[in-house]
Amino acid sequence: MLRVVLIGGGNIAHHLFKVLSTHNAVALIQCYNRTLTAIETFKAATSITDDLNEIADADLYILAVKDDAITEVSNNLPFSGRFVVHTSGNKTLDALNNKNRRGVFYPLQSLSKEKDIEFLNVPLCLEAENQKDLDTLTQIAESISNKVFQINSEQRKTIHLAAVFVNNFVNHLYKIGNDICLENNIPFEVLEPLIVETSAKIKEMSPLEAQTGPARRNDHATINSHLELLTNDNQKEIYRILTTSILNTYGREKL
Amino acid sequence: MLRVVLIGGGNIAHHLFKVLSTHNAVALIQCYNRTLTAIETFKAATSITDDLNEIADADLYILAVKDDAITEVSNNLPFSGRFVVHTSGNKTLDALNNKNRRGVFYPLQSLSKEKDIEFLNVPLCLEAENQKDLDTLTQIAESISNKVFQINSEQRKTIHLAAVFVNNFVNHLYKIGNDICLENNIPFEVLEPLIVETSAKIKEMSPLEAQTGPARRNDHATINSHLELLTNDNQKEIYRILTTSILNTYGREKL
Repeated sequence: MLRVVLIGGGNIAHHLFKVLSTHNAVALIQCYNRTLTAIETFKAATSITDDLNEIADADLYILAVKDDAITEVSNNLPFSGRFVVHTSGNKTLDALNNKNRRGVFYPLQSLSKEKDIEFLNVPLCLEAENQKDLDTLTQIAESISNKVFQINSEQRKTIHLAAVFVNNFVNHLYKIGNDICLENNIPFEVLEPLIVETSAKIKEMSPLEAQTGPARRNDHATINSHLELLTNDNQKEIYRILTTSILNTYGREKL
Repeated sequence: MLRVVLIGGGNIAHHLFKVLSTHNAVALIQCYNRTLTAIETFKAATSITDDLNEIADADLYILAVKDDAITEVSNNLPFSGRFVVHTSGNKTLDALNNKNRRGVFYPLQSLSKEKDIEFLNVPLCLEAENQKDLDTLTQIAESISNKVFQINSEQRKTIHLAAVFVNNFVNHLYKIGNDICLENNIPFEVLEPLIVETSAKIKEMSPLEAQTGPARRNDHATINSHLELLTNDNQKEIYRILTTSILNTYGREKL
């Protein structure tokens, strides 16, 4: 059985701990974190340490630490020639010290500590410097997820960028929708089914086909009435720029 | 039992026919459309007509017609003093001729003829000129949906505006994410679970709390690397403006 050591105490480390400690294909033999308090709860299922010199011998070391800490932590690992991966969407292989064999194990999902997740549906983007390590990583990944992709560093950076649009920016639009509702004493839950339906649609048609709304149907009367209704300059600017982008996409008249 | 006449042959009429003709609390006694072909299939469950003078006596008339046709059709109704509602998110009560008692029955969902929908989850936004009519409308609405809201014309306009942000604009961000993937030979399905999770989160926490990503954590290094990666000026401008808006929301340094 493949032996894994997990390094880190944040969101991703917590989710990986949960899934790796309950799957039989993998032996999570140890967790390391700078401070033990953050991983205190892991103790029930595996051994924990805050001393890098005590790190066990393993087939795979997963560095689930912040982007900024990857290089430093990988420099400080007191061994070489072993297989070490980071979990960042935004860092290349080179963020890891090359005294070890390097790879990436990037779970493409928005993970918060408070929210449990069905890990089987989390896309795992894998990369490694050699085929044997990639095989090891794939074996572990496929034991915990149904969506395993081989993605190089270049592509991963692009995926991360696309994810900012479809996740971070989308959530900010939800926040603006919420604000507009709040200001007018409308319960935000009125919009919930629409939000869920909009996201579900992408499984059945491309977003290009799925587009609806005033900009899509070139309905300048409604667009103008919306711009009049908006009192917040920031909301107005975002409305204007996204409307313009939709009008351009479908070859419509400019605002 | 409350007797309903349905007027119209488009998307909303088809969805309303399906749900009203199968619920026992309501008697869908007749459907009218200008042309019978569009509602031919309704004949198995109720009586149909293309002659306004044949319209039956009912407790409620639902005008499920296009925004532009509401006024004309309501003017042409050959009766007065009865209860007539339209189904538009964007029109006030005044779109209806005041010879009848007026109301609104607005299903807040993106409805396409091809796609069946669980009507129980469709928010119904109701309005009427008097309490008795509002009660009638509420009784019918609650027999087909679990999400019934009393929403006045002013609020309904605002909901429609908020819906543009959380539905139309969100879909356009999906389209940009799709474009970025396509340009880099990445299957868009990598992003699907993230998209679904992002939308599901709003049921458990407010979008203000749910926000993640480089702008949320004030990560200017990642923001700058993304701006470098983007070659399309339009995508760049949208990235910049939404990032700025998130930075401002959480009191971070400006771009």
